[in-house]
Amino acid sequence: MAFSAESLTLAAKGDTFYLIWAAVLVFFMQCGFAMVEAGTVRAKNTKNILIKNMLDACIGAIIWFLVGFGVAYGGSDPIIGTSADTYALHVSDWRSTYASEGYDWASWFFQFTFAATAATIVSGGVAERCALSAYLVYSVVLTGFVYPIVVHMVWDSAGLISAFNSGSPVLGGVIDFAGSGVVHMTGGIAALAGAAMLGPRIGRFDADGKPTSMPGHSSVLQILGVFILWLGWYGFNGGSTLSVFALDTAYSRDLARVCVTTTLGAASGALSSFALVHFTSHIWDVTAVGNGVLAGLVSITAGCVVVDPWAAIVIGAIGGLVMQGFSKLMLKLKIDDPLDAFAVHGTCGAWGLVAVGIFCRPEYSYNLLGSHGFIYPGPKPDLLAVQVTLIALIVGWVGVTSTITFATLRLLGMLRVPADVEEAGMDVSKHGGDAYDLAPAKALVA
Amino acid sequence: MAFSAESLTLAAKGDTFYLIWAAVLVFFMQCGFAMVEAGTVRAKNTKNILIKNMLDACIGAIIWFLVGFGVAYGGSDPIIGTSADTYALHVSDWRSTYASEGYDWASWFFQFTFAATAATIVSGGVAERCALSAYLVYSVVLTGFVYPIVVHMVWDSAGLISAFNSGSPVLGGVIDFAGSGVVHMTGGIAALAGAAMLGPRIGRFDADGKPTSMPGHSSVLQILGVFILWLGWYGFNGGSTLSVFALDTAYSRDLARVCVTTTLGAASGALSSFALVHFTSHIWDVTAVGNGVLAGLVSITAGCVVVDPWAAIVIGAIGGLVMQGFSKLMLKLKIDDPLDAFAVHGTCGAWGLVAVGIFCRPEYSYNLLGSHGFIYPGPKPDLLAVQVTLIALIVGWVGVTSTITFATLRLLGMLRVPADVEEAGMDVSKHGGDAYDLAPAKALVA
Amino acid sequence: MAFSAESLTLAAKGDTFYLIWAAVLVFFMQCGFAMVEAGTVRAKNTKNILIKNMLDACIGAIIWFLVGFGVAYGGSDPIIGTSADTYALHVSDWRSTYASEGYDWASWFFQFTFAATAATIVSGGVAERCALSAYLVYSVVLTGFVYPIVVHMVWDSAGLISAFNSGSPVLGGVIDFAGSGVVHMTGGIAALAGAAMLGPRIGRFDADGKPTSMPGHSSVLQILGVFILWLGWYGFNGGSTLSVFALDTAYSRDLARVCVTTTLGAASGALSSFALVHFTSHIWDVTAVGNGVLAGLVSITAGCVVVDPWAAIVIGAIGGLVMQGFSKLMLKLKIDDPLDAFAVHGTCGAWGLVAVGIFCRPEYSYNLLGSHGFIYPGPKPDLLAVQVTLIALIVGWVGVTSTITFATLRLLGMLRVPADVEEAGMDVSKHGGDAYDLAPAKALVA
Repeated sequence: MAFSAESLTLAAKGDTFYLIWAAVLVFFMQCGFAMVEAGTVRAKNTKNILIKNMLDACIGAIIWFLVGFGVAYGGSDPIIGTSADTYALHVSDWRSTYASEGYDWASWFFQFTFAATAATIVSGGVAERCALSAYLVYSVVLTGFVYPIVVHMVWDSAGLISAFNSGSPVLGGVIDFAGSGVVHMTGGIAALAGAAMLGPRIGRFDADGKPTSMPGHSSVLQILGVFILWLGWYGFNGGSTLSVFALDTAYSRDLARVCVTTTLGAASGALSSFALVHFTSHIWDVTAVGNGVLAGLVSITAGCVVVDPWAAIVIGAIGGLVMQGFSKLMLKLKIDDPLDAFAVHGTCGAWGLVAVGIFCRPEYSYNLLGSHGFIYPGPKPDLLAVQVTLIALIVGWVGVTSTITFATLRLLGMLRVPADVEEAGMDVSKHGGDAYDLAPAKALVA
Repeated sequence: MAFSAESLTLAAKGDTFYLIWAAVLVFFMQCGFAMVEAGTVRAKNTKNILIKNMLDACIGAIIWFLVGFGVAYGGSDPIIGTSADTYALHVSDWRSTYASEGYDWASWFFQFTFAATAATIVSGGVAERCALSAYLVYSVVLTGFVYPIVVHMVWDSAGLISAFNSGSPVLGGVIDFAGSGVVHMTGGIAALAGAAMLGPRIGRFDADGKPTSMPGHSSVLQILGVFILWLGWYGFNGGSTLSVFALDTAYSRDLARVCVTTTLGAASGALSSFALVHFTSHIWDVTAVGNGVLAGLVSITAGCVVVDPWAAIVIGAIGGLVMQGFSKLMLKLKIDDPLDAFAVHGTCGAWGLVAVGIFCRPEYSYNLLGSHGFIYPGPKPDLLAVQVTLIALIVGWVGVTSTITFATLRLLGMLRVPADVEEAGMDVSKHGGDAYDLAPAKALVA
Repeated sequence: MAFSAESLTLAAKGDTFYLIWAAVLVFFMQCGFAMVEAGTVRAKNTKNILIKNMLDACIGAIIWFLVGFGVAYGGSDPIIGTSADTYALHVSDWRSTYASEGYDWASWFFQFTFAATAATIVSGGVAERCALSAYLVYSVVLTGFVYPIVVHMVWDSAGLISAFNSGSPVLGGVIDFAGSGVVHMTGGIAALAGAAMLGPRIGRFDADGKPTSMPGHSSVLQILGVFILWLGWYGFNGGSTLSVFALDTAYSRDLARVCVTTTLGAASGALSSFALVHFTSHIWDVTAVGNGVLAGLVSITAGCVVVDPWAAIVIGAIGGLVMQGFSKLMLKLKIDDPLDAFAVHGTCGAWGLVAVGIFCRPEYSYNLLGSHGFIYPGPKPDLLAVQVTLIALIVGWVGVTSTITFATLRLLGMLRVPADVEEAGMDVSKHGGDAYDLAPAKALVA
């Protein structure tokens, strides 16, 4: 069907606006992560985690501009972008009709916010003992190389395993709509590598290897952060339609359905996590609620556009349990991940990819072969294979590159702060003093 | 006038985007309520109020999906929705042309955020002594039954007192544009019922029945929350046009005018409340400013689209005074409503409905008989009657059902935590420890 | 080119939505300023700064409605708006076709949020010793008179130095796209005048005139505020296209490019400021990161739509250094500006205007003579002259009027709180008690 030039122009302008709307929401997730992480570390490392959260976004912006976006969306090669045009955005404004309405610029911004999300996740796993300079070095590596390679393979139309690559996709291409795998598993696996290479915080495990209690310093900041993240996730998942006005599509319906499934996934993740902790410990645990919301959100991110609402509830609820299980497992393995970055983003990211292979409705599938979830009857109930392939790919690629990077930093003696700095806290040692001065005012003798 | 199919499609897609934009803003009000409430309770109950705020949204989402949305918008009956289609959204995506652009899904999400708002208001009235389980039971009742019945009667096109029911509306239908009555009075009346059934916090009134000072633990959280709520209110009031692109309407003008009146109402509510408290107590009171903003916002919510900007200033200013007056009255009646949920949401909600009967401009009225505010000359200056009818309806319906529910919970011994738990604080008793650990770091001896 | 009426209508509706989207983001900057300022003052003045931040927005709304918007956009005269129509918005809804879609109302709201930004900046410079009543008087003067005159001269199509005045603009008109000068310099110069008239806080300089350490009370609030401000800046800079759907323009491309340059400017400002402080003091300074983001944002605000991404990085980076330099200079001059409002908003605002004269690309210039940055070859590399003219105009106009106002308040003995109030803190003295009560809960003896 042919549309009028006017209508196409309006749609193109509207889509730029739409993508900016979504990107701005996703950008705000930086604030959400900063608050969750600040609340979850001890007061003595507050400034440190705030600086890490803000600087990874800042360095990430420069690196994403110079290199990352080009690696991710530079086309043609199945593994890495090779078109010089997308590096440093130097010709992006002169190209196609669609670009003339700014969509290329908007894409850069939208994709930047995703890259910043992947980077920030890592700060949680390495919190309270990783040196700032080492963290920033890793941020550059992740934003400029590790993460955009994953993006390219999954989301670029030339990507190896992309469902948008009509040339030679693997098994018709993976369905990772908004990035349970691309963003969250990548961040979560990198966080695991960092946490393992660093070793636990001093005192995290006692002489018998039992974990000690090391609670964060502010539940308010945790929950403030979770609410901000949940908010931003509507841009993250919703905006991943990448268009809402395109005339020959039903993207607006996809957007709206995604908001429904995202809401239900978050809600059920919180409830299952909360209930599990309550039944096992008799505590009404606020962290279980907050991390449960995040677990539900990560779990629904891959499949939010291809599953029914009831399935979103199931996926989120299982996500909440998966997160709690892996959080316990990390402690058994004596890996100290202060924010549960791996349990929340890594394992729920993987579960989100698996869940698509189970619950993807045939009508909603955009795998090039029409593969769908195995619970539905029909000719191609075999999506799970490609989903698991992506999990293996991310575990391998991110696991190896991250481990090499963190191991190198450790060999250079750059990775971890000295024990006295860690015990005193990074804020007084490195950042000019405590993050708070809440000494009550002297009473006025009037 | 006939419009081209293309233009209608663009408008439909745009309206889905618009409604999602608004819903996301309203969703963020959950965070605003959480922060205001956390700041207003004592530090020892911080985790408890955070969990209540987050879990009512989570449980609300599931219940709204299964039941609430169906009760509210299931059509045909004047009191309750009866169409099975809207329960659990199970056929919503296959219906009309408009639905094909996702508007149904977006509506669910937008309306969910309103339901969550109504539910959360209640947590303020019962704060610091209501048992978590009882609160969650009440949340289910409110979100699944009490609130959606009100929505159905006022906003569904089949509703008893709806201005969109061209069949047999009461007096042409009530004008409660964004829900001063439907949302805020409902939440406020329920909060009053809960506060009355629970009785005051231990120590709230001294031996002579005089209220003691029981300030919240953080002014910053209060004001942070109020700013977030004010922000979200632009989605709440603005988004209540439900459309901005529809070609044969002036909804975009309505949206913009609503943002003007909402701003002015909030501002004048803050100023009148602040001035009153200053003139009576000589304190520049931060809570008076914060609650004044909320009072102004609640007051202008019913009439934001039908009154002039000058009237918005008057409505907000009176709202600020009404709130302060009823706040004092509650203390006289020895009802302990820690957040002034009834004064802010209940009484200003009622005032907002009355204000429409006074200030509604004839040109803006959408009552089916064309009734308008009595200060304007013209044929039908009798809107006030139907507005007052809705107040009575909400007081009766919500008051009775809420009182029955809370009374039942009390009879079952489920409603209130034991005195020792209350005195120690819920956080150490039930939630695993204090919400904060701000102990300053040990100084590093370098 | 003629467009169909339908398309024009859709575009007009969409632009109203777009402007409201942007205005809502800019409104949220009020919250960002409140959090940054609360975190940067000492705990004993927390309530005071929160009240100032909220009340300037509330009073600002009423004054902007009655007077400010009329002064700013009332047309015809080159210095001040004279059309009675725009005062109190009393006829704005009946005018042109475009207005029929609500654009006038939306403009009022969008411009209000800018006025509120200018006003709030001042509160930082006068923090911790300015009397509340004096501050509110100044807010009225700024919002009703000082600021809207600047707006009128620069942005109204009749304005003296406006690039939209095809009659007799100065040198083709200044390029201050989103208001590095109009908003930020105005606020920053007024803050400087206030800080100078007030004198330093007690104890800010020791007997030898050396500055003492007087850190804020919460790094978390600072960074929370900076993230919120950065978020809001996408509405501030992006929304300054004022349209995204207009069919014969490339505004959507401008919007998207603005988001890219704004991101890069913020990022490089943070990095240069952070690096400079680290190299000079060996502290990883969280305030340097936060204020660096703001410096970068202020610096890119004038030129965000006319410079290339690489130039945005340069502009932001220099902005971070300019801010640090002027912050030090203020201390040398013994001017106590607790928030560095002048260094961040005043000097980076001026630098942003200068930067346009250097880096404005010829293809992007909207100066009526086609003037552009001097680094580019081509016929009119002389934009700098008009940019510097605006700096002089703002320094003169705002400096003189602000100094007169603050001096008058000082003469009347209204400007500064008594020394005992200042030492005890304003919260216990004037606001009914401390902002926080974080006393840990008593442990429950179960």
